[in-house]
Amino acid sequence: MVRKLTIAYRGTAFAGWQRQNNAGTVQQVVEEALGSLAATEVRILGASRTDAGVHARGQVAHLEGLAHLPDRALVHGANHRLPEDVRILDAIEVEEGFHARKHALSKLYSYRMVRCEVTSPLDRPYAVRVAPRIDVAAMNEASKHLLGEHDFSAFALAGGSHTSPLRTVLGAACEERGDEVWFMVSGNGFLRGMVRSLVGTLIEVGMARRSVEEFVSLLNGARRSAAGPTAPARGLTLEEVVYDSRWVIGSVVAMVD
Amino acid sequence: MVRKLTIAYRGTAFAGWQRQNNAGTVQQVVEEALGSLAATEVRILGASRTDAGVHARGQVAHLEGLAHLPDRALVHGANHRLPEDVRILDAIEVEEGFHARKHALSKLYSYRMVRCEVTSPLDRPYAVRVAPRIDVAAMNEASKHLLGEHDFSAFALAGGSHTSPLRTVLGAACEERGDEVWFMVSGNGFLRGMVRSLVGTLIEVGMARRSVEEFVSLLNGARRSAAGPTAPARGLTLEEVVYDSRWVIGSVVAMVD
Repeated sequence: MVRKLTIAYRGTAFAGWQRQNNAGTVQQVVEEALGSLAATEVRILGASRTDAGVHARGQVAHLEGLAHLPDRALVHGANHRLPEDVRILDAIEVEEGFHARKHALSKLYSYRMVRCEVTSPLDRPYAVRVAPRIDVAAMNEASKHLLGEHDFSAFALAGGSHTSPLRTVLGAACEERGDEVWFMVSGNGFLRGMVRSLVGTLIEVGMARRSVEEFVSLLNGARRSAAGPTAPARGLTLEEVVYDSRWVIGSVVAMVD
Repeated sequence: MVRKLTIAYRGTAFAGWQRQNNAGTVQQVVEEALGSLAATEVRILGASRTDAGVHARGQVAHLEGLAHLPDRALVHGANHRLPEDVRILDAIEVEEGFHARKHALSKLYSYRMVRCEVTSPLDRPYAVRVAPRIDVAAMNEASKHLLGEHDFSAFALAGGSHTSPLRTVLGAACEERGDEVWFMVSGNGFLRGMVRSLVGTLIEVGMARRSVEEFVSLLNGARRSAAGPTAPARGLTLEEVVYDSRWVIGSVVAMVD
């Protein structure tokens, strides 16, 4: 039996998603919670290796086994054992062979900015400050040039495991929501640090330190040093991972915590 | 010289606003930051004694002295010394005799609820979960009965320092914002725990465990035990404290952090 888990977390206190030695990761605490529940060793595999400090509203992982535990008992029991900054939002049975990373059709990330002079402590865990005068229309115009397949070498952090720097962006926009600016981007995959590097460079466009044309010229395999800085992890959230609906066997069971 | 400070904080890690022995409070860390900056002992007085875990986007305090420090240097220097969960948003000179608590005309509080089965860890620091089926229209109808002067004894926690249980509510509403439900209430003053007790009781109205008429019957000095539970502190935020504009001498200086 294979299940697809949707997991949300506040990334602030974690060294990212992926299990590693000597650092607390989200994968580890979820595996430990499920392992404690099932009294056996449990391994899960996540769709996205979010970096340290990055949040998720819709990370997806697959879990094999534990067929004796109904979805409801599994989600409820794991959430009871998880720290309050991690929650399994739902569990659903999927076809054998389902793989959270390999079968993801696209991922949607958001990056939240707040136009202000002093960042409110209530916003700070989830956003970065930008100057009130920032030109969101220019940022949005630049974002539209991301659509389609490009060589994103200029936006890749060292340490990624990619073999090709080509990625296809399926949607991208910078939009104002009250005092906030949100960058939303979906794609078939992202290089390590790509969204945050795009944001750091888009902010330069918004501050008129770089033209839209200069931004566009980075989308053909420019060097990393040609692009802007990597924006802080705390503004980034993995919103959703999309799969073909044919994988689903069961019906979604959501749980009261 | 007297200044009016606007202060925002994430209340999660604090034992409330008011200085006390053996517990970290917001007043204390702000006084320490200002004291470190000015190399002297500093005392401030806040408009509202927010309880442990309650947040603020617009707490107000007054500060006497430190006339040698310009507003800009004061705000910037204090923020540099403050932990990241507290920020002075601005400082402005006010007439001698200004008192943050005594001269407050009204205070606006918000309480944030999220309709969901499992609380997202990103929402949890600032909200409480309510059932998706909750009746917001009924909660809003009940809220409207709060307007005007009432005896709020049924909504007062023990430990408050009030001499009269009468308070005047100037505005009150429950509104839907996407998946969220926000209770907004402004008044000339609030008994200890009053907003959270109102929320706990309004949630019972929304869940049809109590009628609007039963809610209204509590507004004439009923016993505390007749009302609903006190909702958790983490959903409550002091949004704004309002003063007569005649107090202001200077012009607002906001700072980059």
